[in-house]
Amino acid sequence: MIPTITAFEASPDGGIGLARDMRVRWALEELGLPYDVRLVSFKAMKEPAHRALQPFGQIPTYEDGDLVLFETGAIIHHLAQNHPGLLPTEPNARARAVMWMFAALNTIEPPIVEREQNEYAVGDRPWFAELQRTFDDRIRTRLRDLSNRLGDADWLDGDFSAGDLMMVMVLRRAEGMDLVEEFPNLIAYVERGKARPAYQRAYDAQHAVALAAKK
Amino acid sequence: MIPTITAFEASPDGGIGLARDMRVRWALEELGLPYDVRLVSFKAMKEPAHRALQPFGQIPTYEDGDLVLFETGAIIHHLAQNHPGLLPTEPNARARAVMWMFAALNTIEPPIVEREQNEYAVGDRPWFAELQRTFDDRIRTRLRDLSNRLGDADWLDGDFSAGDLMMVMVLRRAEGMDLVEEFPNLIAYVERGKARPAYQRAYDAQHAVALAAKK
Repeated sequence: MIPTITAFEASPDGGIGLARDMRVRWALEELGLPYDVRLVSFKAMKEPAHRALQPFGQIPTYEDGDLVLFETGAIIHHLAQNHPGLLPTEPNARARAVMWMFAALNTIEPPIVEREQNEYAVGDRPWFAELQRTFDDRIRTRLRDLSNRLGDADWLDGDFSAGDLMMVMVLRRAEGMDLVEEFPNLIAYVERGKARPAYQRAYDAQHAVALAAKK
Repeated sequence: MIPTITAFEASPDGGIGLARDMRVRWALEELGLPYDVRLVSFKAMKEPAHRALQPFGQIPTYEDGDLVLFETGAIIHHLAQNHPGLLPTEPNARARAVMWMFAALNTIEPPIVEREQNEYAVGDRPWFAELQRTFDDRIRTRLRDLSNRLGDADWLDGDFSAGDLMMVMVLRRAEGMDLVEEFPNLIAYVERGKARPAYQRAYDAQHAVALAAKK
């Protein structure tokens, strides 16, 4: 059985690897697992058939036989628990790698995503720039703490793990905000992630969907 | 060895169970595990000794022998993986329970916490109320989807799990926003969580710290 994930038929980022199926594709490539992709339109994402798989009307989903999962954290956690390569085998190191997945998703990502959402919600207001500066401060505080913890290490805790995969993708989500750039070690960390062959394969596969959509 | 968690010496919520150590206390009580608490002041939270345990200068942390964890999701995941009672044993159901932990922390909680942070950041601006209404809309959309998925079930997927524990606590974080109240089945769901004896024990233990601080 090859699992199936869902992805945008036409990604709002134009296929540069920010849509969340990229996270799952990267994990599948790191683990050497084949997968199928079912593309979903914006309209179909909000309809009952897709909501039965993903109650919030988003992508990606993961289907493998009777198992249906959503939330990239949960999908990658499931894959990493069941296949070697993205979590250490030593129990304490394994718990810490999972910890960095949660830190990426619950400490670093929230102000980044809400800052992005502000553009849609209040981007036309005269006070928009002032608001965004307060979000920049929230994001910067978290990035500074992360930068201090990372120091000159290659990865957050020993070898590359699912925690690093998620953190690299969350930091990529801040592209265009000129905030990660204030921390050279975080930029180098993201580049190390992007240089991994599995990342490249995942990126190319996602990008090919965008190229096909343009034709 | 009894593990040690950290908690606020003086909680900003006055001890009504919103500080995040409540989540970990509840999980420990559900699992029947004893624990010690070390109280930390706001000042000490930001100093190097605490940041060595929690790089973002927050509570709670979890220390058990050589293992140090932060992030409530990671701590509860670790406890639930290693002790029976908060995750189903059937593998697919177990993966879905973990999925609801991630959904609580990465889909439901982010706009709630950022709305709260807006009060500190821009609460004095003339456009503050207008901004908060846009956050209300973001939160309401997610709550509506969650309400539709829950339907008239007691818990999100079968028996009570770590996913429900986290979701109940995340919904409690929206108290005072008058948003969860728009969805009677979510209010009833939160009340079911709060009625659990383990919740009550955790609440009382956390509240006792606040009462002692007032003396």
